[in-house]
Amino acid sequence: MADTLRIVLSDSKKEKPQANALGFGKYFTDHMFVMDYVIDKGWYDPRIIPFQNISLHPAAKVFHYGQTIFEGLKAYRTSDNRTLLFRPRKNLERLNLSNQRLCIPPVDETMVLEALKELIKIDEEWIPASEGTSLYIRPFVIATEPDLGVSPSTQYKLMIILSPVGAYYAEGVHPVKIYVENQYVRAVRGGTGAAKTAGNYASGLAAQEVAGGKGYAQVLWLDGVENKYVEEVGSMNVFFKINGEVVTPALNGSILNGVTRDSVIQLLKHLNVPVVERSISIDEVQSAYDNGVLEEAFGTGTAAVISPIGELNWRDRQMVINDGRIGEVAQQLYDQLTGIQTGRLDDPFGWTVEVK
Amino acid sequence: MADTLRIVLSDSKKEKPQANALGFGKYFTDHMFVMDYVIDKGWYDPRIIPFQNISLHPAAKVFHYGQTIFEGLKAYRTSDNRTLLFRPRKNLERLNLSNQRLCIPPVDETMVLEALKELIKIDEEWIPASEGTSLYIRPFVIATEPDLGVSPSTQYKLMIILSPVGAYYAEGVHPVKIYVENQYVRAVRGGTGAAKTAGNYASGLAAQEVAGGKGYAQVLWLDGVENKYVEEVGSMNVFFKINGEVVTPALNGSILNGVTRDSVIQLLKHLNVPVVERSISIDEVQSAYDNGVLEEAFGTGTAAVISPIGELNWRDRQMVINDGRIGEVAQQLYDQLTGIQTGRLDDPFGWTVEVK
Ligand SMILES: Cc1ncc(COP(=O)(O)O)c(C=O)c1O
Ligand SMILES: Cc1ncc(COP(=O)(O)O)c(C=O)c1O
Repeated sequence: MADTLRIVLSDSKKEKPQANALGFGKYFTDHMFVMDYVIDKGWYDPRIIPFQNISLHPAAKVFHYGQTIFEGLKAYRTSDNRTLLFRPRKNLERLNLSNQRLCIPPVDETMVLEALKELIKIDEEWIPASEGTSLYIRPFVIATEPDLGVSPSTQYKLMIILSPVGAYYAEGVHPVKIYVENQYVRAVRGGTGAAKTAGNYASGLAAQEVAGGKGYAQVLWLDGVENKYVEEVGSMNVFFKINGEVVTPALNGSILNGVTRDSVIQLLKHLNVPVVERSISIDEVQSAYDNGVLEEAFGTGTAAVISPIGELNWRDRQMVINDGRIGEVAQQLYDQLTGIQTGRLDDPFGWTVEVK
Repeated sequence: MADTLRIVLSDSKKEKPQANALGFGKYFTDHMFVMDYVIDKGWYDPRIIPFQNISLHPAAKVFHYGQTIFEGLKAYRTSDNRTLLFRPRKNLERLNLSNQRLCIPPVDETMVLEALKELIKIDEEWIPASEGTSLYIRPFVIATEPDLGVSPSTQYKLMIILSPVGAYYAEGVHPVKIYVENQYVRAVRGGTGAAKTAGNYASGLAAQEVAGGKGYAQVLWLDGVENKYVEEVGSMNVFFKINGEVVTPALNGSILNGVTRDSVIQLLKHLNVPVVERSISIDEVQSAYDNGVLEEAFGTGTAAVISPIGELNWRDRQMVINDGRIGEVAQQLYDQLTGIQTGRLDDPFGWTVEVK
């Protein structure tokens, strides 16, 4: 780990896509960060190299036993052309928590953060500037040992790739329709739900396909034990405003500890909006709706920041929330968070880290 | 899919390892089967090529969202030098069931079986001959589309790799010690437990590490909902002989439909040993033990065929089964199954398929 960062620059530069064609995770920059691990030696040879394919043995454990984790965070270009990262330390801490759950050796968070900054500086021109765009950062670790035994790998690769991403909401923030899933389960107590690992997402694809076919943007997951308590929405944490109080599921071991979730909780406290983390059942959401006190619902995550929920479908009963319009609190959180992230607003929490 | 099989032979042959050095899944033969899929075109270009690394885009969905499935079966060399596959159709059916759960397009089972036979013929010299050895066959499908959106891939690769494997029991079949897991969960109703997909195995690594550290070979998984009903043992289905009757957990959607499990059930019926598929709680196993009627316990799977359980540890209570020796039924099943698989015994069920 004492290795110094090695840098090999690309001979050529790819053409950059138009801001309105970006989408999410479709284009990648000219360079990537790679670091290898082998047991007895530890992590070694951290390097920034031209963006390229990975060559792996077909028996690499990642293909067979899913020993892999990832992270997702963003860099923003400010109006005065600086580059800001949003709470990158939180993502690196979570990366190591995911590593631990998946029996992957920890990485040096400080060293990886420095390497990430270096990578971003090299590919700085790729950070899009127009409203709502950003540079999505995807660190991930894969088990590379070529061995079909079901046991932790003795070899790994950590990579960081960068993708310029478009505005999540092309025409202003708009609420989405969400399907409350009651057949498929994403995660369960004792499982891997609190880690950011591939299997959690694989497991959700089928439910998403079904919900998508019915016209819903995402599914809301209930807990795996009782099929009753609200967990998350797609790749977002979820919040409800009920009778003036904002409620979000507590970190119970089967949901992800979202960085946006944590930021929203802190912001709400700062704004003097009552907020509580506790378990909340879908029946409670339904009866709040029936009683006319389900005032808002929204998801939180790095991709969309705040994603208002305009409609929930639970067992074929529709709950149209706030007339299908974005709520006041959701709008305020969206404005504040994106304001801080892009340097438009003050950052009283010290969340942003400048890349320079 | 109308494509004919393309064959590119390797210029050179690797050295074959000694039979006693084989182990499991460490060595691979000279060739592999590959077939690609792209939406709108379907599966195309089935080919046998020299065994080689795979080159993938770092954003290939398999790395991030675990959209991948696999299979495991074996080819055996008979004493008169023929090659037998054991129930390969069952594995290909299961491959397509796993595909379905993971939103992967189905493959043509007949075509893949024919390609597999061709591959085995080409690498026939790799099938080890000594007692207990075999050629392990690992078909797997990975999502290859370079895109970070959480949705089913539009591109896939199916591969089959072959690995000569050693005798599972170097010194005769011997019972193993198993730890009943009551913290970690492998799978849950509504999850992916019935599919052979990477995430299920990733999720189990941590529990295995803990159990291994305490001197146990594998963990026995309980159900994810009540943490009470017996599911599977490591990568095996599990059977108990209680008071003359053999009991195995019913296929409840969270355990794998093992080919060995199915064969064992059929064999037991054939041998007039009472056998029943139903849910069985760990409390029931414990009280059978306390009452002196837990006569045998064993796991079933392609790797070990039959793996007798000599000791179960549940919440720090030890159950030593049949004095830690292999039971009569387990021994009989092992002899019969391996006899059929290797052509030593008649095959009244028509389970074996000759490669010629
Ligand atoms: C399952 C899941 N829940 C919640 C989140 C939100 O986490 P964050 O706010 O850190 O992006 C994500 C990731 O984006 C996720 O994948
Ligand atoms: C989780 C799991 N259960 C059971 C089995 C046994 O299945 P089979 O008898 O088809 O090998 C396997 C695979 O080998 C497995 O991975």
